[in-house]
Amino acid sequence: MATSENQPKKKLIEPRTLKGFRDFLPEAMIPRERLIERVTKTYRNYGFCPIDTPVLEYLEILLGKGSDETDKQLYRFKDSGGREVGMRFDLTVPFARFSAQHLAEIGQPFKRYHLAKVWRGENTQAGRYREFMQCDFDTIGTTSVFSDVETAMVINDVVERVDLRTEDSFTKFKIHVNSRKILNGALEKIGLSDRSTAVLRALDKLAKIGADRVVEEMKETASATEEQARSILAVATAEGSNEAALARIEKLLEGSELGLEGVADLRQILDSTASAGIPKERFVVDVSIARGLDYYTGTIFETFLDEIPQLGSICSGGRYDNLAELYTKQKLPGIGASLGLDRLFAGLEELGMVEKTATTVDVFIPMFDASLATRYVTLAAGLRRKGIGVELYPEAKKLGQQLKYADKKGFKVALVIGLDESARDVVNLKDLRSGGQLEVSAEIESLASKIHSVLSDGLDPQ
Amino acid sequence: MATSENQPKKKLIEPRTLKGFRDFLPEAMIPRERLIERVTKTYRNYGFCPIDTPVLEYLEILLGKGSDETDKQLYRFKDSGGREVGMRFDLTVPFARFSAQHLAEIGQPFKRYHLAKVWRGENTQAGRYREFMQCDFDTIGTTSVFSDVETAMVINDVVERVDLRTEDSFTKFKIHVNSRKILNGALEKIGLSDRSTAVLRALDKLAKIGADRVVEEMKETASATEEQARSILAVATAEGSNEAALARIEKLLEGSELGLEGVADLRQILDSTASAGIPKERFVVDVSIARGLDYYTGTIFETFLDEIPQLGSICSGGRYDNLAELYTKQKLPGIGASLGLDRLFAGLEELGMVEKTATTVDVFIPMFDASLATRYVTLAAGLRRKGIGVELYPEAKKLGQQLKYADKKGFKVALVIGLDESARDVVNLKDLRSGGQLEVSAEIESLASKIHSVLSDGLDPQ
Repeated sequence: MATSENQPKKKLIEPRTLKGFRDFLPEAMIPRERLIERVTKTYRNYGFCPIDTPVLEYLEILLGKGSDETDKQLYRFKDSGGREVGMRFDLTVPFARFSAQHLAEIGQPFKRYHLAKVWRGENTQAGRYREFMQCDFDTIGTTSVFSDVETAMVINDVVERVDLRTEDSFTKFKIHVNSRKILNGALEKIGLSDRSTAVLRALDKLAKIGADRVVEEMKETASATEEQARSILAVATAEGSNEAALARIEKLLEGSELGLEGVADLRQILDSTASAGIPKERFVVDVSIARGLDYYTGTIFETFLDEIPQLGSICSGGRYDNLAELYTKQKLPGIGASLGLDRLFAGLEELGMVEKTATTVDVFIPMFDASLATRYVTLAAGLRRKGIGVELYPEAKKLGQQLKYADKKGFKVALVIGLDESARDVVNLKDLRSGGQLEVSAEIESLASKIHSVLSDGLDPQ
Repeated sequence: MATSENQPKKKLIEPRTLKGFRDFLPEAMIPRERLIERVTKTYRNYGFCPIDTPVLEYLEILLGKGSDETDKQLYRFKDSGGREVGMRFDLTVPFARFSAQHLAEIGQPFKRYHLAKVWRGENTQAGRYREFMQCDFDTIGTTSVFSDVETAMVINDVVERVDLRTEDSFTKFKIHVNSRKILNGALEKIGLSDRSTAVLRALDKLAKIGADRVVEEMKETASATEEQARSILAVATAEGSNEAALARIEKLLEGSELGLEGVADLRQILDSTASAGIPKERFVVDVSIARGLDYYTGTIFETFLDEIPQLGSICSGGRYDNLAELYTKQKLPGIGASLGLDRLFAGLEELGMVEKTATTVDVFIPMFDASLATRYVTLAAGLRRKGIGVELYPEAKKLGQQLKYADKKGFKVALVIGLDESARDVVNLKDLRSGGQLEVSAEIESLASKIHSVLSDGLDPQ
């Protein structure tokens, strides 16, 4: 640490964060931690296990795995040992490297979650950050459709509980499901398999440019005939209820083994999740979603909040055939999804679903009288042992000043004890929300139960 | 993601981590998460609030704050926008920058915790890692000794609960306390204040080289007289019970206001923590600890596990006068400490205090019969709603193979349901630890309560 001895006064360094990076103050961090805790709990509930990997990887691990764009956005440098290294830009590439490296130890199937930061030197316009958090979960080493079912259930359970205001509120959202097998089956059936990338790229623009221009683009970039393009579009725009859409697709794909497998996968997901008690209307069969063109090979998920679909998908993922092909000959099929924490948070704030608080505890003890300091310390310790978090103000400032601090932070209850209260072994319990107050016994057991009841029911103002 | 279409076979990239970096597999990560959860809970219980800062900072923020050594160990580079940046090497420097930058918003006093990774390009011999985790908590904006008391209590509560085997085991440890005011007072009294760094540096070698050579070094490097050196040593080696040591120091420091303030601080910490119910023998007044020579100005803490003191201090900290002097003219006094998670973990493993498990849930449902898959999915969902985490095997492999998987991962209970059990609406509940089994009703309410009782009491083998 800097020495203060015998040093000339230095010019102050401006305290600032890098462009595209940000600090999180308690008001922002407390709800983030709450959400992270809920997400973690859900992943764990299904037997997904935590792993962690280094922030820095050998450059060769990271390069060429993403798109040209992620390559360009990579934070890369030469370390002091002369190694070319980079900061991870997602959690999938490190997981692929990890799986190949530790395959013998982890076995198959393997279910992991990983909540961690990633870095991309993106253009910082439009609320994009260069450091953000991903919350991934994946099941690898199995092609079973029941891992698809489970992935759908985990997405449901996570997103259902992102409203941070209360313990019991549920968000309204839709999970769009698709299978790459359906369009791949359709392409196979009409003989366009070798031009799938161009076809799908055109299809991805459907919402933006409309059916006719998509057909034009398919004809141009994939040399498709009008009939071929229209037939793909018919599959991609199958509408109606989930059952009706799947029935229509099934008919269009008659004879295509792959395509019909995709239909069967989606049916299994819809049936099993309904049996498990998830409302049927939560899922929308939507052949128009075609995520991560080249990577996914089966089921695909995207998730939208009902009230702000324009936010984009807050939880996306899908099935892949081969996770770690760059690092091992062992084929590792799997399925996974990722919650976009930062995008989701932007949405929750817009919806008023983030309660602002700058404290982690409900109870505040002002240091009303310096001579009673050890009394306060002891009382606070007793309450903490009863599971009640307590903050004790460290200085005997004026009570009004201390209560102003308490109010600003958002404590709910204050326990005020002066010499008189101390002598009589009582506590003046203030409800900081209503302004009500009550003199209660300072005996820990009864005080703790009184605090619990005031926290849940409030105290009438006087 | 990499396309598999029309690409020539590429040479495999060796999956490896950088020297000094490591992956955490579930067996390592599950107990780490458990410890992090406990630490966080303790910090929060006292009203410390979470913050977060970017991994990357402007280089000027990081340089010159640490020692020459941390400067040398810094991961630094020029980003694609031409900015000189570095990865944080501790959480104190970012906190200092953060405090100066957001002072108006956070107010004073301000209590924060920050659990995050830091990076140092250290020599990787002797089990040192280049990426490790720090768990800091600090109270700034007050010089009150009751923040010192609270820091002592937090250290106690955290370290008390690091035994990860059970919910109720308590570790045996000692918190060594000192105050820099004591030695500074002694130096002041004998007129050596201007040579404190050299004197303290010599003193820090006491255990290694003995009293006589420390005296020699003080004479050489600080131009101290024999008497001055001996008088400092007398203070630094005051022994006996805490009370006896403090009484002796008090006598030696007679007339030094600063020194006596240090004695009073330590007495307040000992008294208040004892009143709050912390065993007196947990604290050791130890004037020989002189952490972070130039940075600390008051109370200092170091914490040692009784069974492996040679591990070194696992939780250290102290009081400082001015946190953010490089970034703001506003003086920010405070006190804080940091739990060294990686060092602690090495100790816990040595002591057998880390239970190995590769699963986050206790209950395993094998997919015994593929035709019953949705039945299993539904049962698992029902149990999860009752708060019981469940993993469902995704494929209908041979039962023996699935139970081997369950055994390797460490599940405690398996629920086996074949066609016969399903028809009769019962479950074969297996205790995977004892080998015992029992046929029970598949009705969720009663099954959940049966699982709870088997998990806590076990099931006799048959």
